[in-house]
Amino acid sequence: MNKENPNQRLESIVGYASDHPFPLENLPWTVFSTKQTHARRCAVRIADQLVDLVQLSSRAASAFSDSPISAQQAKSLFSQPTLNAYLAQPRRVHQAFRAFLQHIFSAHSSVFASNLQLLDEILIPIEQVQLHLPLRVGDYTDFCASKYHCTSTGRLMFNDPTRPLEDQWYQLPIAYHGRSSSLIVSGTSIKRPQGIFRSKPGSQEVEFGPSKRIDFELEVAFVLGGQGGGGGGRDEVSEDLNQLGQPVQLTNAEELIFGMMLMNDWSARDIQGYEMNPLGPFTGKNFATTLSPYLVELAALEPFRVASPTVEHTPFPYLDHQGQGTTWDINLQAHLAPHPASNGTEKVWTKITDTSLKHVYWTASQMVAHHTITGCNLRPADVFATGTVSGPFDEPYSEASLIEACRAGRQPISLMTAKGGPKQTRTFLEDGDEVKIIGSAYHPDSKLHIGFGECAGQLLPAAQL
Amino acid sequence: MNKENPNQRLESIVGYASDHPFPLENLPWTVFSTKQTHARRCAVRIADQLVDLVQLSSRAASAFSDSPISAQQAKSLFSQPTLNAYLAQPRRVHQAFRAFLQHIFSAHSSVFASNLQLLDEILIPIEQVQLHLPLRVGDYTDFCASKYHCTSTGRLMFNDPTRPLEDQWYQLPIAYHGRSSSLIVSGTSIKRPQGIFRSKPGSQEVEFGPSKRIDFELEVAFVLGGQGGGGGGRDEVSEDLNQLGQPVQLTNAEELIFGMMLMNDWSARDIQGYEMNPLGPFTGKNFATTLSPYLVELAALEPFRVASPTVEHTPFPYLDHQGQGTTWDINLQAHLAPHPASNGTEKVWTKITDTSLKHVYWTASQMVAHHTITGCNLRPADVFATGTVSGPFDEPYSEASLIEACRAGRQPISLMTAKGGPKQTRTFLEDGDEVKIIGSAYHPDSKLHIGFGECAGQLLPAAQL
Repeated sequence: MNKENPNQRLESIVGYASDHPFPLENLPWTVFSTKQTHARRCAVRIADQLVDLVQLSSRAASAFSDSPISAQQAKSLFSQPTLNAYLAQPRRVHQAFRAFLQHIFSAHSSVFASNLQLLDEILIPIEQVQLHLPLRVGDYTDFCASKYHCTSTGRLMFNDPTRPLEDQWYQLPIAYHGRSSSLIVSGTSIKRPQGIFRSKPGSQEVEFGPSKRIDFELEVAFVLGGQGGGGGGRDEVSEDLNQLGQPVQLTNAEELIFGMMLMNDWSARDIQGYEMNPLGPFTGKNFATTLSPYLVELAALEPFRVASPTVEHTPFPYLDHQGQGTTWDINLQAHLAPHPASNGTEKVWTKITDTSLKHVYWTASQMVAHHTITGCNLRPADVFATGTVSGPFDEPYSEASLIEACRAGRQPISLMTAKGGPKQTRTFLEDGDEVKIIGSAYHPDSKLHIGFGECAGQLLPAAQL
Repeated sequence: MNKENPNQRLESIVGYASDHPFPLENLPWTVFSTKQTHARRCAVRIADQLVDLVQLSSRAASAFSDSPISAQQAKSLFSQPTLNAYLAQPRRVHQAFRAFLQHIFSAHSSVFASNLQLLDEILIPIEQVQLHLPLRVGDYTDFCASKYHCTSTGRLMFNDPTRPLEDQWYQLPIAYHGRSSSLIVSGTSIKRPQGIFRSKPGSQEVEFGPSKRIDFELEVAFVLGGQGGGGGGRDEVSEDLNQLGQPVQLTNAEELIFGMMLMNDWSARDIQGYEMNPLGPFTGKNFATTLSPYLVELAALEPFRVASPTVEHTPFPYLDHQGQGTTWDINLQAHLAPHPASNGTEKVWTKITDTSLKHVYWTASQMVAHHTITGCNLRPADVFATGTVSGPFDEPYSEASLIEACRAGRQPISLMTAKGGPKQTRTFLEDGDEVKIIGSAYHPDSKLHIGFGECAGQLLPAAQL
């Protein structure tokens, strides 16, 4: 475990305020293109600039003598349109390459100290790039690991304010396989989905049309990568992180997780409610899932590691942390801006959710151990999402979806409005509404700030059929 | 629609019996390697030989003047380890290339007639190759489209022999997203999965251990490919068959289906039963799903097209064939061979299932239309499986899974045994048991026979934890 000390701040050759969300301690990964080149390539972000890793491997090739991958390998890995090839590298390469980058971009770097023009050539101001989904996701799994979210949606669905969670929920982290093709990068607009749903909740009458209950779900997505010593696939073209048929032990599980992204699991509650018995969510979820463009390594979040919630039911040994597992204290917020017609031309954001990843009951390691207990093989760039990260019922802004915040439509939420604009309320999303999820970890003494960027999107009217 | 006439048989330059399952009219696709080369490449099969398409494009380049793709393009497409790049070609290329291959391998082919040695150089006897999963599957979706399977498993689960299907089942083809990483090729052994399940059906007591109820499910997998005129992705690196947010019309849906494979959706009934409320099947299914190595084009199956089952409830317009849809009459069988210890050294197969794809209620086009109605984008090599293809209750061998055939364990099945061997029965699978699914379409007058090859696998004991 890489115990980076938040009080020993790194000094970077790139200047920024000490509480900047993208300091050298963060160094999140992404994929970008520019108007000039069009072709996508890999980068890390420092402050308000991207490090073009293809340029770095070309223009500063001699510096790679200290790197775990050669300049030529780096050029090949990073000139690809996704991070997949890099994610498939062994974990020791990820650790050493992160140290290498932090070293060469440190204030005392011999690589750039005498050659600031070189630095200029490999840094690209963030406003000049377009960011893309940095992954080609083989499989995306969505867990439902927040006790608070699962309890409150169960109560809302059955209209029973004291209904407890099923016993099974405490035995294993429940999950379903999601749709990989419709994972999209922040900023991509989505169209209101159409489908079949009950005319009123509980009614036997059904109708077809644009969904009337479009919701967001604030989630964190764990991204896999980093083949360990025990890995190895079932044949020569496989990149499997564990062999088919061989479960990953709980104690080794976190080694397979490269990092985290923010996620909005857009949901059509009415379509989902009608279709999900008995096979689970399908078209009510598969129309779009938005990810933030940055992939933050677990190593960057080490200073924010905390104990996971107290276990309420000792699980079977394959899921038992024997004591307490760990998670990360990452502040997560969701904000909603109503469509411009509602408030004139000015976009006004209202905070809906303000919670932390630390409230999620099941740990990332437990998700990996459970996913593989039957022998399911995992691959680099697989995504494991937490499910909606709702927090304790007595905390304000703890609801991480609209269905919870508006009590399934019974208590509309008041929105902030522009001065003089009409009063606005929401239950579910209207056409033109925007949702933005942000996340950050912050250490007040050192001002160490690890940001995740934005996970945002606008809902557009339904397509013509 | 390519109305190939079963009575006008093609004459092939490769000799075979008229009822051979891989005549020139079949020409199924696969991926192979040999002991000499190791590298995987694409092929089609004719009789008992594979056409090495890389060799064809190199050694018979001049013949490609009649091909919709150049010899150089062909070499690039077919030297890849999966069919994905070829599947991403437009539908018109697929149609024209199939015609091109049937032309050059016809008995009167000018390409080989005067140069039979050239033919020898591009044909490889099937016993010299290893076959591989010919797809890199982006997303795999499993429907549950047989009325008979869904009715009988519902009745078994609730122990109510007259229980009807839910109304919702007749409104839309229910489905769940499956796990892509554990799709494996026929012949790959699997390990018995472990997990949590109720000690007895209906019991509140749960235990952890190797599943006691491993089952097979005989299914047909539709494989997508062939971008049409209306396709086009959301950005320059996308191969999407429909734009995110834009549903595929029922009348255009079949154009997106390239062909079919056989599938065994191995299931751990006890693990699945415990975990699936409310999010659907997860670890009870994700440990392995076996596909046959051959991908049979829809064009090859055109002579076997029949009307789909009578509609029992008129669906909403996006799913309404306005009259009757069509399907294919393909005989599908599942056979079980108990582990060698049960019957000495000889492997003895017992037929468990003998049914047809034609009994499946929802059509392939309806699956595509429903999957995309919310705007979900599809990609080449996506797999849409039918779900268990059980037939009418009054037909013998109509149950396409063990849970149906053995009435959830209440009526053990008698197995064929070797002469003098001990009597054998089965409810669910024992370690060492093998399951083999075969499929074929046959026209008795012309003896046209379209085979699918085998979808087979052996269950091995659980892994050590």
